[in-house]
Amino acid sequence: MIIVMNAPTPDQVNRVLNKLKQHNLATYCISSGGNTIVTAKGDLSACNPELYERMPGVDRVLIVKSPFKLASREFQADDTVVAVANSTVSSFGGSRLSVIAGPCAIESYEQLYESAVGVKTAGATMLRGGAYKPRTSPYTFQGLAKNGLEILKAVKDAVKLPVVSEVTDPRNVDLMVQYVDVLQIGARNMQNFILLQEVAMANKPVLLKRGNSATIEEWLMAAEYLMAGGCSQVILCERGIRTFENYTRNTLDLNAVPVVKHLSHLPVIVDPSHGTGSWRWVGPMAKAAIACGADGLIIEVHPCPEEALSDGPQSLTLNNFTQLMDELRILSAALGRPVNT
Amino acid sequence: MIIVMNAPTPDQVNRVLNKLKQHNLATYCISSGGNTIVTAKGDLSACNPELYERMPGVDRVLIVKSPFKLASREFQADDTVVAVANSTVSSFGGSRLSVIAGPCAIESYEQLYESAVGVKTAGATMLRGGAYKPRTSPYTFQGLAKNGLEILKAVKDAVKLPVVSEVTDPRNVDLMVQYVDVLQIGARNMQNFILLQEVAMANKPVLLKRGNSATIEEWLMAAEYLMAGGCSQVILCERGIRTFENYTRNTLDLNAVPVVKHLSHLPVIVDPSHGTGSWRWVGPMAKAAIACGADGLIIEVHPCPEEALSDGPQSLTLNNFTQLMDELRILSAALGRPVNT
Amino acid sequence: MIIVMNAPTPDQVNRVLNKLKQHNLATYCISSGGNTIVTAKGDLSACNPELYERMPGVDRVLIVKSPFKLASREFQADDTVVAVANSTVSSFGGSRLSVIAGPCAIESYEQLYESAVGVKTAGATMLRGGAYKPRTSPYTFQGLAKNGLEILKAVKDAVKLPVVSEVTDPRNVDLMVQYVDVLQIGARNMQNFILLQEVAMANKPVLLKRGNSATIEEWLMAAEYLMAGGCSQVILCERGIRTFENYTRNTLDLNAVPVVKHLSHLPVIVDPSHGTGSWRWVGPMAKAAIACGADGLIIEVHPCPEEALSDGPQSLTLNNFTQLMDELRILSAALGRPVNT
Amino acid sequence: MIIVMNAPTPDQVNRVLNKLKQHNLATYCISSGGNTIVTAKGDLSACNPELYERMPGVDRVLIVKSPFKLASREFQADDTVVAVANSTVSSFGGSRLSVIAGPCAIESYEQLYESAVGVKTAGATMLRGGAYKPRTSPYTFQGLAKNGLEILKAVKDAVKLPVVSEVTDPRNVDLMVQYVDVLQIGARNMQNFILLQEVAMANKPVLLKRGNSATIEEWLMAAEYLMAGGCSQVILCERGIRTFENYTRNTLDLNAVPVVKHLSHLPVIVDPSHGTGSWRWVGPMAKAAIACGADGLIIEVHPCPEEALSDGPQSLTLNNFTQLMDELRILSAALGRPVNT
Repeated sequence: MIIVMNAPTPDQVNRVLNKLKQHNLATYCISSGGNTIVTAKGDLSACNPELYERMPGVDRVLIVKSPFKLASREFQADDTVVAVANSTVSSFGGSRLSVIAGPCAIESYEQLYESAVGVKTAGATMLRGGAYKPRTSPYTFQGLAKNGLEILKAVKDAVKLPVVSEVTDPRNVDLMVQYVDVLQIGARNMQNFILLQEVAMANKPVLLKRGNSATIEEWLMAAEYLMAGGCSQVILCERGIRTFENYTRNTLDLNAVPVVKHLSHLPVIVDPSHGTGSWRWVGPMAKAAIACGADGLIIEVHPCPEEALSDGPQSLTLNNFTQLMDELRILSAALGRPVNT
Repeated sequence: MIIVMNAPTPDQVNRVLNKLKQHNLATYCISSGGNTIVTAKGDLSACNPELYERMPGVDRVLIVKSPFKLASREFQADDTVVAVANSTVSSFGGSRLSVIAGPCAIESYEQLYESAVGVKTAGATMLRGGAYKPRTSPYTFQGLAKNGLEILKAVKDAVKLPVVSEVTDPRNVDLMVQYVDVLQIGARNMQNFILLQEVAMANKPVLLKRGNSATIEEWLMAAEYLMAGGCSQVILCERGIRTFENYTRNTLDLNAVPVVKHLSHLPVIVDPSHGTGSWRWVGPMAKAAIACGADGLIIEVHPCPEEALSDGPQSLTLNNFTQLMDELRILSAALGRPVNT
Repeated sequence: MIIVMNAPTPDQVNRVLNKLKQHNLATYCISSGGNTIVTAKGDLSACNPELYERMPGVDRVLIVKSPFKLASREFQADDTVVAVANSTVSSFGGSRLSVIAGPCAIESYEQLYESAVGVKTAGATMLRGGAYKPRTSPYTFQGLAKNGLEILKAVKDAVKLPVVSEVTDPRNVDLMVQYVDVLQIGARNMQNFILLQEVAMANKPVLLKRGNSATIEEWLMAAEYLMAGGCSQVILCERGIRTFENYTRNTLDLNAVPVVKHLSHLPVIVDPSHGTGSWRWVGPMAKAAIACGADGLIIEVHPCPEEALSDGPQSLTLNNFTQLMDELRILSAALGRPVNT
Repeated sequence: MIIVMNAPTPDQVNRVLNKLKQHNLATYCISSGGNTIVTAKGDLSACNPELYERMPGVDRVLIVKSPFKLASREFQADDTVVAVANSTVSSFGGSRLSVIAGPCAIESYEQLYESAVGVKTAGATMLRGGAYKPRTSPYTFQGLAKNGLEILKAVKDAVKLPVVSEVTDPRNVDLMVQYVDVLQIGARNMQNFILLQEVAMANKPVLLKRGNSATIEEWLMAAEYLMAGGCSQVILCERGIRTFENYTRNTLDLNAVPVVKHLSHLPVIVDPSHGTGSWRWVGPMAKAAIACGADGLIIEVHPCPEEALSDGPQSLTLNNFTQLMDELRILSAALGRPVNT
């Protein structure tokens, strides 16, 4: 049960909480934009929701059956639109699609600047680039760290594109918010709840990648951690799951797109680069993602993929990306939901 | 190594086989359309392919590295086009897309006739319907068997649509070819090599579904069984794989579409009905399938899904299907590869 | 609902069937050892089981909730013991364990004879050997077919060991029963229902391998097909499932052993050779299988694994096997369930 | 290539590093117990290992092919023995087995004290109990946090059992080392490299659980993060992987036990409680784990499982646990590797 209270007094909140406790329900309280949202869990059979609707300060009472509450369509019927940096063209979940592009890792100012100019010219409205790279081996390139963030900020200012970058350490959140417009939670950290709780408080939109073995429900529960922590601007990102099939590095699970749009009001975008692991399948799967209802894409692009310090095999060249954007424009127009540029 | 011989004499074939045996290579011989194709396996390092190219009757010699030979792009660069019943509109792998539709199981003449008229009106150019249903439980409906085939033939003649139906027993192949235009190998029988070998000799196109846990390579090896047995008219069909994700009944693996088109010259179509297990996701995934390059679709449609004897939850109503076909026409036109009607 | 009738007259059976039909229940009738077993499916709420218990000829009425009926512990509380060829030492499901061993494929009389003598000396009480080999590629060794069966019979008679061999073709069942003591259904054919139905009628024990992507429930449903077809002597065999982990060829799922022993009265044995794909892990996993309650083992042994025509990497040498049997004798004695020899 | 230097001077280390850089190799330097270990990655073909063996301060040079270096058998042939708190009976990897037991979560002093006394009496030599619980839902019990650690310390002192507890936040490592003898990295954090790096510096043994979708190689790479960070006392723990099979909550992958013992010198224990998700399978799988070579077990035990705040269904009662320990003593003695008590 979710009780939404509109600008309540502390006393009004306490009366609600006390009554819930009398009914032996566990409570969880979130303040968000003047509202207070009380989540109650337990055996609801003995308690009458109508009772709570009549209490002072209470706006409405919802029975939400799914384990994710704030992320559910039951809680909010209308699509959430995440407008990054108040931009109308870097916006996810509305009537148009947005494409994020850029290199896997930030390697140098020149590399990132060339990427940024190229992807912006082709039609991307947001730049990606990693400064902190979680790598399977301790002996491989781990990113430029703070230097990478400095480069990212400089390129962002020079090229005028909002930026997203991955945060991996709860102690780094305060630093990162000074540099990026969207904080990314990577697939390996999807259930790093400590990190989710810290990021939720940063007052920035969050791009939440699906863990490579996470069920859709676990993914939405991770989003719920962010929302319960006060962050309502969550962009979900499907990026491939681990299956028995090894021809592709991951199995991009596009089924998740219509499923998530059905279960949740949050925007969902698709990462065909990590999702497939090879540049060759990025184009077809990007088009498929759009066709099944994704709200946008995030694509790895590198000026010189064969020299990339990470994920070269799955990066598009600027030429490939430009051609793909041309195809996506035609396709998205036919689908009635054009790409932002 | 594959040695293609053009209308060779038996003596010419024997000379080739003998030389291969001298090189300790295992040989496998197929006759197809006047040609004889000799497959040689083993350590090729000691044998000179040029040697074989100069032997009488030999047309060309190919080194094919993939385990599937005849199904590979290396063996045949151009797309195979399977024109069912010599029809130009029930054709797979060419410049236009074709859609197969109909009920999971044949239940009665009325049910199948109503389905057939409805899907044809909406734009399908081929009818599906099962007479022999492999079911997990011995206690559930197993299909109408020969009676089902009689109904299928009657409806086919009445409505003028070519038909596809599943064969499950090698002893039934001769019977089935009298009723159907395309023989379907179901997912559970993808590695039933006895059945594949029998079906390969039937001189009919074969719709080969991917096993729900088959790798792409195993699937193409199953196609190779058909081709090595003399059947060159193979239509591959992706229908979902088994993963840890249980929100959808299967995980439709659209990545397989561009991968198979890259590795093989055979047409590949998509079954979003079995692939997802719910009518709700059929539309979005059908569109995604087209967008990533599928050569066609096979969709379950039932006049009254809630009363279907099998697979009701994943069947579209005729209204849903008609609307989907309208959307597919717009989408496929934008992609430059219109749907046959 | 299952209605067990003891030596009923045809009329008594018909009265039961008619009453079930009045209650709108689907019925399925099996005769086995003088008994007739009627399975009824559908909405049981309206029918009173007690009513049926009082009908003439009815011995008892059982409500079985699991989808497998005859294979369930609810239907039969006591363990089924399958005594192969009436032998007390080639018996599965009783107070002692039995080990089946031998090569993957029958290659020659000498190879099989040497294997048989060796494994019998080491303590195996049953011989395995394939004459029909389902192989992923049409170009690899497919077994010696009928010649292989002749060799198998000759060695069986010479060495006095009962034998098991795989059947792949429903048209071959009549032939095979002349040569083997136990018919094996391979993993790829676990859901080849046509084959199961044919084998069920052969009046021989059946070794039913779990499909490499079959759930435990699907596996027990395949056993149900055999039992519903009249075969009560089913030995289940866990042989590894397909997962994301590729270090081992398959992931031997030993969890299935206690689960199946809990759900079903049928014996379950383990194949650590196919289950892991490498001789190196056969010993440890064989011991683990015994420790978690398996009723026996089936192990690939070859006199010269590096020259085996199939599955060499996972075959033990005779020396390795002899040593393993010594270890298993100690272990199984400590577990209170000694190995037959 | 790994270069082990014995008590080198800084100058000696620099000479090695400089030469490696001349060969264009990436270097990584670890100091551990007086030794300095230099890891070099890149194209080794141009560099002569013998050259490095002759440099001053260099003890030996190893070519390690696996991606994990310090964790590999190639680097260290002998088994690592982790003796917790210098105890001979809470020791992992030696000639005897050790069993860790206790509740999933610390709920109260009484609950933990009763558990500790019970499991010690039954033969466990180490206590488990979680103070920080990573939970899928933000609305469920998350552990008693610091209060839980206080209880854990009090019970540890009262009952004289070393303790292990999970660390989830890099900012908590300093706090936790004051309370626990072994730091546990949970399955969800196996690739939380930030946490691994922080924990590696804590100078405590680490229990590293396998991620539920981690390959064996990824798991050993996570151990490599710990070892490269200076922690040589790593205990690996198999706890079940995610597969398509849902009858058990996870699929305990016992194959990993002999595989890891083959690839690595690190001890490996098994958690049959999380591995199966139900108390019913804990006993059989614990025995199987011992039989295939595990160095120990970690088992969830609760005085009153039906009232446990988390993981009740998979917890043994004290009675069940006592009986299991009796069985394990007999089994482990027969295997020649008795259980510590």
